[in-house]
Amino acid sequence: MELSIGKPILELNERLAADNRALLDEHRVYVLDVLASPGAGKTSTILATIERLRERYRIAVIEGDIASDVDSQKIKAQGIPAVQINTGGACHLESAMIQRALAALDLETLDLIIIENVGNLVCPTDFYLGENAKIMILSIPEGDDKPLKYPGIFQASRAIILNKVDTAAVFDFDTAAFYESVERLNPTAPIFPISATTGQGVDDWVAWLTAQIEKEYGCASS
Amino acid sequence: MELSIGKPILELNERLAADNRALLDEHRVYVLDVLASPGAGKTSTILATIERLRERYRIAVIEGDIASDVDSQKIKAQGIPAVQINTGGACHLESAMIQRALAALDLETLDLIIIENVGNLVCPTDFYLGENAKIMILSIPEGDDKPLKYPGIFQASRAIILNKVDTAAVFDFDTAAFYESVERLNPTAPIFPISATTGQGVDDWVAWLTAQIEKEYGCASS
Repeated sequence: MELSIGKPILELNERLAADNRALLDEHRVYVLDVLASPGAGKTSTILATIERLRERYRIAVIEGDIASDVDSQKIKAQGIPAVQINTGGACHLESAMIQRALAALDLETLDLIIIENVGNLVCPTDFYLGENAKIMILSIPEGDDKPLKYPGIFQASRAIILNKVDTAAVFDFDTAAFYESVERLNPTAPIFPISATTGQGVDDWVAWLTAQIEKEYGCASS
Repeated sequence: MELSIGKPILELNERLAADNRALLDEHRVYVLDVLASPGAGKTSTILATIERLRERYRIAVIEGDIASDVDSQKIKAQGIPAVQINTGGACHLESAMIQRALAALDLETLDLIIIENVGNLVCPTDFYLGENAKIMILSIPEGDDKPLKYPGIFQASRAIILNKVDTAAVFDFDTAAFYESVERLNPTAPIFPISATTGQGVDDWVAWLTAQIEKEYGCASS
């Protein structure tokens, strides 16, 4: 019952992803691919991350959306370079799109690129873009049963951010059940409960991300 | 930049959808295809709809999920027949899956089938399943900018439910901006602000759905 995306498309994607990876390694740029449902708080989490890391790293953002440039405008308003990709209907980003976005950025002047993928818990999971890590954000209002329904994305994510914890009182979210389901699918992924809006928990997430970057490329140059 | 799903797949889907449509017309069964993000409240809205229509119509539910049968268990617990489709990774339902689900139901004994599609604002939009109407649910926590980012689904939906309005105080949701964006994309679609949990607004939505069913097949037989 699985829609076959077609082997040629996935193979081409892998090949271009490897090219992206080589280019990024050459310039020692760490790339984080952020996955989530629409409205889980990708942009606000990215903005909160930038706020805490902009003194340490030179950052750019690649924004993936079906349509509009709402999010890249928010990033640019913070003085951070942003490249908008409009997929024109496609449900995920592919390596070819990232390749074009990388060509629009000056990699010599960057340490960290954050990719905001299209809001979708399914399709982006299958597409390696050349990133160092995929992470995902689930928000409290989406419900604690999402690991059961969308296991693939929980397995593909190096870390899991649980966002909007400041709204927990309003929603019937079983935190213990959520942690248990995630642990079964992905026992090594840390879970960071945060509120991107209030800032709660964001420092822990950012400390983890910093450790990942330093593990890959050593300490920041700037 | 659009992933080509492949013309043969879409053509096959359309052909099987027409078969589904003919079978459903023969049995005078109205089919509603419900689209939304993960966690927007599809299952709870369907349960609230069933609660108000189960005396008037004989109802069944087709549940589409990547994995698990969490939702169909909730439907069955209400004494309503439910068929679970696990797509095993696919990001949307297709006509062939619906065809198999219809074969598992006794259409002679049904007036209304509600399909809960996979949680995804993108892919299900392109797949006609033989339904009478697609509708979508957006929930307040997802944000008022979603019509700008996911225009296709707002255009494909006959009606739009705005769910979780009881949580509006906690989120910064610009209702006027949302209505304006929807109106630009789809001027004829009514918007029903509801809370599936508290029941607020659900009667208006159900009255609209009833009118659609009666317009198609006349008044209820039971």
